[in-house]
Formats: sequence, structure tokens, C-alpha cells
Amino acid sequence: MGKKRNIIVGQSGGPTSVINSSLAGVYKTAKERGFDKVYGMLHGVQGLLDEQYVDLSTQIHSDIDIELLKRTPSAFLGSCRYKLPEIHENPEIYEKLFEIMDKLDIETFIYIGGNDSMDTIKKLSDYAIVKGHSQKFLGVPKTIDNDLALTDHTPGFGSAAKYIAASTKEIIRDALGLTYNKEMITIIEVMGRNAGWLTGATALAKTEECDGPDAIYLPEATFDIDKFLQTVKGLLEKKKSIVIAVSEGIKLADGRYVCELSGGGEYVDAFGHKQLQGTAAYLASFLGAEIGCKTRSVEFSTLQRSASHMASRVDIDEAFMVGGAAVKAADEGDTGKMVVIDRISDDPYQSAAGIYDVHRIANHEKVVPRNWMNKEGNYVTDEFINYIEPLIQGDYQPFMVNGLPQHLVLRKN
Amino acid sequence: MGKKRNIIVGQSGGPTSVINSSLAGVYKTAKERGFDKVYGMLHGVQGLLDEQYVDLSTQIHSDIDIELLKRTPSAFLGSCRYKLPEIHENPEIYEKLFEIMDKLDIETFIYIGGNDSMDTIKKLSDYAIVKGHSQKFLGVPKTIDNDLALTDHTPGFGSAAKYIAASTKEIIRDALGLTYNKEMITIIEVMGRNAGWLTGATALAKTEECDGPDAIYLPEATFDIDKFLQTVKGLLEKKKSIVIAVSEGIKLADGRYVCELSGGGEYVDAFGHKQLQGTAAYLASFLGAEIGCKTRSVEFSTLQRSASHMASRVDIDEAFMVGGAAVKAADEGDTGKMVVIDRISDDPYQSAAGIYDVHRIANHEKVVPRNWMNKEGNYVTDEFINYIEPLIQGDYQPFMVNGLPQHLVLRKN
Repeated sequence: MGKKRNIIVGQSGGPTSVINSSLAGVYKTAKERGFDKVYGMLHGVQGLLDEQYVDLSTQIHSDIDIELLKRTPSAFLGSCRYKLPEIHENPEIYEKLFEIMDKLDIETFIYIGGNDSMDTIKKLSDYAIVKGHSQKFLGVPKTIDNDLALTDHTPGFGSAAKYIAASTKEIIRDALGLTYNKEMITIIEVMGRNAGWLTGATALAKTEECDGPDAIYLPEATFDIDKFLQTVKGLLEKKKSIVIAVSEGIKLADGRYVCELSGGGEYVDAFGHKQLQGTAAYLASFLGAEIGCKTRSVEFSTLQRSASHMASRVDIDEAFMVGGAAVKAADEGDTGKMVVIDRISDDPYQSAAGIYDVHRIANHEKVVPRNWMNKEGNYVTDEFINYIEPLIQGDYQPFMVNGLPQHLVLRKN
Repeated sequence: MGKKRNIIVGQSGGPTSVINSSLAGVYKTAKERGFDKVYGMLHGVQGLLDEQYVDLSTQIHSDIDIELLKRTPSAFLGSCRYKLPEIHENPEIYEKLFEIMDKLDIETFIYIGGNDSMDTIKKLSDYAIVKGHSQKFLGVPKTIDNDLALTDHTPGFGSAAKYIAASTKEIIRDALGLTYNKEMITIIEVMGRNAGWLTGATALAKTEECDGPDAIYLPEATFDIDKFLQTVKGLLEKKKSIVIAVSEGIKLADGRYVCELSGGGEYVDAFGHKQLQGTAAYLASFLGAEIGCKTRSVEFSTLQRSASHMASRVDIDEAFMVGGAAVKAADEGDTGKMVVIDRISDDPYQSAAGIYDVHRIANHEKVVPRNWMNKEGNYVTDEFINYIEPLIQGDYQPFMVNGLPQHLVLRKN
């Protein structure tokens, strides 16, 4: 009897609509390539340290389950926001993790996550090499924010962009229906602390039967509240219903977030990131006071990252592909790498999995290039739209049960 | 050449996902029953007073357009929140409206809207009878709030309920994925000033793979913030991720809205209704301070009334049916009536159009019966769930163009 070839996979960071499609891709390719067991860490490395894991064959019983998993938002295995210490700071944690992996006959460790997760892959693969462990460590990208470097775009981004664009169309229609001879301003707040990719995606609402947002403010350009007021006043000379999209992370020239102006909520997560909220509400009440018209604010909030009922087929398929590609790479001997999506062609859109050394990737945020915004910093350019448009195409029909989308969920027993 | 038989239809009040399906029903039945022209008032009676209307045959060119209209949220014709004065207060307005109707050879006037719109139908039909005008006036119900009396439920409610239930499932999944060894509380805020129908619809998220919300607070029960805190603490003893749904209109025993506690936004519309916002945000920060765990708030806001991409087939079909039934009723001589939905059977669910004198309907809000909530006032009963469940069944696939749902929009030329 040869040595067991087992694989373990975890999910980390903020949820997306398609993070489970990557998990499904890992599972399917692992089974096809002859791995014995596919374990799932519960709540990532943090759970693994507590020896919390499942054998995925107890969860996935059929191809229908694989398809359900692709349509299930948020982390099926549970996520965490746990940052591994530097190796020299706490070698015991590394020893413990490798002990658990040895006990489970783990040959390959796959981590699906964002920048912080790639940092985990880097540290574990460095440690393994230094200490002579044989495990392979592969990263699979995931983030709605699309702020990972080297990959053309991140799995999760296209679906969030699609949900945001579709909802923006509906909000614009809602506002138009309500606006007759009085002015109304709607401010939509979109996620994206430093990167405006998702906020820019509202521009996709501009279609043959919809004007799209009238202005779009990304965190990549300094926000000038006086200019903003002038822009809005100018727009109101031409139309009665104005819809504006703003990133939660827009900042003034002095570095303060707009949402801080209201004394609004601020929360610091385990990685020291401020959680922002209240930008749209602040701007709506600001404009209401300055202009004296009806204003309202809409926050897409957590809906935008878990609305798998409006996921993009391209995104789900690519998430599945990169999951499988990570297993393939490890099986062929790679370690300390992240799978990325390479864009082969714009028209027709084609993509393929590529692979990069994770040392080149971790902890660098990719933001929207300034020249993909107009000079005034209040809209995105055609280059931006051409880049995003292919990523929201196509659908996976939710499996509807009793009127609602069905999900695959973890069964503990 | 006989007298022209024209019909005019308008939309009023807050948008829904299916108010245009009723418009489509009016149009189709009017054409089938031999009406010459079908006019649409732009922005309801308010626009009609400014002689703003369109010939709908310039807008709807094919059966595909009818199908698109069924899938288009918000008022295709534009809505208004215009309340007709009492007849004795301002007879000139009535004279003007009937002059315009006479000029357009209007035989039948159909108004799609909520309580306030039925008030318009009542006044206009009263005026016509008193003054000997021959026009017929029929009301078609519409409101996501489901607060109209005499009808089993209102068109628009089922789709909003479906969107809310589906999004609640996604939010619960999102929260579960994020929660490992630390507690997190999510508060979801749902529309419904005095009627908790939509907030109660979050209970539909309880399915074989989802616990549903852990507590639900409707405006029909007095909200006791101390009891609320005790309930949440009790829930946290059993599970780490708590999701609670609250109506925007929950009130304390002293009559204050919970959202007023934060000094939060309040806005009074043309009908004197307060616009409420900030209930969930207030409760989230209250619990965060009291319990010391992570909390977050989600407002479905305007998304819940215009998310036609998650509309219910039952709802779209019934909205279409009541539109057509209003035309049929008028064509057969009725006036001063509102078409309603009668529930013929629960299982299998069957419904049919009924008709009531509008004098029996207007300005009476139907709320959730107290015995459809549990004793503690923090959940709905099985009767409530059995009532709503049939209304969210089935789908109309959006017509997707370039990755996004396509809508039919008014072409002015």
C-alpha cells in the first residue's frame, strides 16, 4: 500500500458569490487526478489549528451537489480573517500546522482567498522549503474587490459587478418612475476601500434603455465636495432624477474618508482595515441641505458579495477553472504559487489559468488606473467598461426550491 | 362612424416589480375587447392634469414588448404621489380632468396603485355620477406593503417577499461563513411602515438548509428594547451568528419609532407619511455597545421594491390578471370599483379576480393579525408562512442582454 495522497482546501477572507465554485473545482480535479481524500478546513487556517476539518466526500454526494455548490454564496467551509505570524515570531504555530498536515497525509494545501491568504501561502511554502517538508502550497484568488495584482481580474469580481450593475439599473428605473416635476437625487454606495473596480461597474448600467449613473466617484481620485456639489447642480439643470455611485472609500484631499465627516461608523478588522459605512447617507443629507431637493441613499452592503442569484456565468466558470488549475499545478510539482486568470483575448473574450510565484503577489493592492477615469474624476472611461463587460456575461440558473434559490450547506455529524 | 372607445391608464404611488405587469394586462385586454386607443397618463393624475400622456401603441410593438414590460420594475408610465382634493374644495381640478378625458374620448379610466390611488378612483367615480359623466373608473391594486383591505394580498407583495426571502438566505449564509469563534449579529431592516408583511416574509428563508432569521420584529407588536436585548443574549448562548429582521416601523411603547432614538433621518411625504430609516443601524450599534460583539446592519431599501430580476411568477401573473380584469369589469359596466385577488384554495394554490366597491376599501390599512405572531412578538406563526408561501413561487426569467436584465422604457418623441 503506497502513501496516501490527500489534499486539504480552505477558504479565507470576505465571502463572494463564487468562492464555492473554486472549491468545487478543487474537489472535482482532485478526484479526477487520483487524490485519495479531499479535506476541507473549517474556517481556514484558524479552524485547522483547532483540528476543525471535514472529509468533503461526506458533503458532496453527486454532480448535482457540485452544481449546487457552484450556486452557493459565502464560504461553504467557513472563512476566517486569521493572519499567520512571521515564522520567527511564532514557529510553534507552523510546527503545529505541519503536524496536523502530516497526520492527515496532506500532500497539497490549497487556500482560496485574497491578498492576506496569499501571504499565508507564501509563509507556509517558505517554511516547508526551509524545514524540508514535502507539502505543496497553492493559492486560488478570490475577492469581489478585484484588487489583486498580476491576475487580469479576480474570481468573485464579475458576479459582484453584475449584481451591482443590475441593481443600479433597477434603482435608476425606480427613481425615474418617481420623478415628475420635482428633483430627486439618489446616492448609491458601493464596496471597495481603496479600489474603485466595483463602483466603476455601475457604469455597465448604461445600456440602450438606461442612462446609467450620472456620475461615479472612485477612491482612486481625491473627492472634492465643492466640485461634487457643482457637478450635481449642473446635472440637475439637464434632468430631474440624478443617480450617483460612490465608493465607500472616497477620501478628501486631507486624507479623511467622506464617511468620517458624519462621525459615522468605523470599525477596524483583524488586519487593521477600517470598515467604512455611511458615505452615501452623508452625501445625500449634504445635498438635501445644500440643494433643498429630495435625496435618498442606497447601500448595497453585504448583498453585493453574496448575491449568487445574480452571479455571472463567466465568473462561476473561471472560479471553477482556477480551483482545478491549482490542483493540477500542485500535482505537477508547483508550490508557493498562485493561480491567476490571464485574458487571452478581448473579443471574443477568452481567458485561461496562469500561474505566478506568490512572492510576487502578496500584499499589493491593484487599483483602477487614473487614466481609466475621466479628467474630472467623476466617471470611468471606455477602456474601463471594455475591461469589465465580458466578466458579467451569462448566468447559472439558481436551483429554485419552493420559490427560493437552494444552497449546499455543511452537514456536521 | 361610432364614438371612439378609448381607455386611459395610470400608475401611482411607490413602485413595485410588477406594476407594469398590470399595465401589460390592461393593454392586452383593452386591445382584445376592442378599445380603440389605450392611453397612458405620464406620472398619473398629476401628469394628466398637465396633459401628459402617450398612446401606448407607440410604445408596445410586439408580444415581446408585452413580455419585457412584465419584467420591467417601477412605473413604466411614471408615478406620482398626488392626492386629489375633496370635490367641494377644488371642483376646478375635477372639471379640468373630465375636460381632458372628454377630449380624448375616454370611456374607461384605470388607476394602478395603493390606498391613496383607490381614493382617487372613489372621488372621480363619485364626481362622474354626481355630474352625469359616463366614464367608468376602476382601480387595480398595487403595493409591496400588502396593506390593502379586502384583497387576499396585493400585486407587488409576492415579488418583494421573494426578493427579501432570497436575500435573507444569502445574508444568513454570508454571516455563517464569517463566524467562527467570535459572535456576530446581523440586523436586517425591511420596509413596511405600519404593516409587517414584508418583514415577516424573511421567515421564508427558513428552509431545509437554512435556519432563517433568529427573530423577527413587526411594527404590529410594541418593541421593548430591554426584552430585545435579553432575547439576543439568549440566542447567543445557542449560536454564534445571529440574524434578526426588523421592520423600519417598529415602535416603542411610548409611540416613538426606534429609528428616532438615534436622531436618524425622517422625511414627510405628500401624504404626511414619515419616511423611516436607520432602525437596523441603531439596533446594531446598540447591541454592539451592550454585548461587545461584532454587529452589522443591512437595509434592503429601495432594492426590495424594484428587484424585478427576482420577481415571483405567481405575482407577475396575478398582476397581469387584475389589470385585465379591471378592463373587463369596466367594459361590462362597472365603475367605482377595485379589482381584488380572491384566494380560491391554499393547496393547490388558486386565485381569481374579484371586485369590490372602492368605498369599502380606501384608506384602511391591513396589518398582520396579532395571532399570526408568537406570544413574545418576535416571530411569525405557521399561518403567516402558509399564507405567504404560495405568493413567491415560480419565476419569469429576465431577458438578459449583454449580461443584464433588459427593461421596456418609455420612448418620448
